[in-house]
Amino acid sequence: MNSVNIEFFGYFAAILTTAAFLPQLIKTLKTKKAEDVSLLTLIMFICGVSFWILYGFKISSSPILIANIITLILNLFILISKVFYSKKI
Amino acid sequence: MNSVNIEFFGYFAAILTTAAFLPQLIKTLKTKKAEDVSLLTLIMFICGVSFWILYGFKISSSPILIANIITLILNLFILISKVFYSKKI
Repeated sequence: MNSVNIEFFGYFAAILTTAAFLPQLIKTLKTKKAEDVSLLTLIMFICGVSFWILYGFKISSSPILIANIITLILNLFILISKVFYSKKI
Repeated sequence: MNSVNIEFFGYFAAILTTAAFLPQLIKTLKTKKAEDVSLLTLIMFICGVSFWILYGFKISSSPILIANIITLILNLFILISKVFYSKKI
């Protein structure tokens, strides 16, 4: 299997695991609550994704780099929404 | 920076983004609900993680491979718990 096909797996994985957080953000904004979403999960995941960005940069992997930057942004928005709506109750 | 240090970033990222789903699973099992957790997010994430496993295998990256296999298992348990508890109501 050539490198183009290998990169395809990476990009497809990247698109799915990145876009996956969009329905969660939309759901949180619509229902105005994310009580059941673990705060610790969000914090640990955001820290981990930041290290994936460093790793992706070091091994020069574009799929890892791009995917994790967008994943980081989406999860930061989910975290902010969760904290914002939990304080409103 | 040598390859040992680069691998450290990968493994640290892997431990964090993998272990991150444990608090979510524990929270779901304790509260017996995951109503606010998006079903579409879980399904898309599980599909994406499966492709990361393929990508990690192809580029021979142990951190990507190990992390995503455990992430897959934890998210499958979260998905099963969510569906199970939603049907009990």
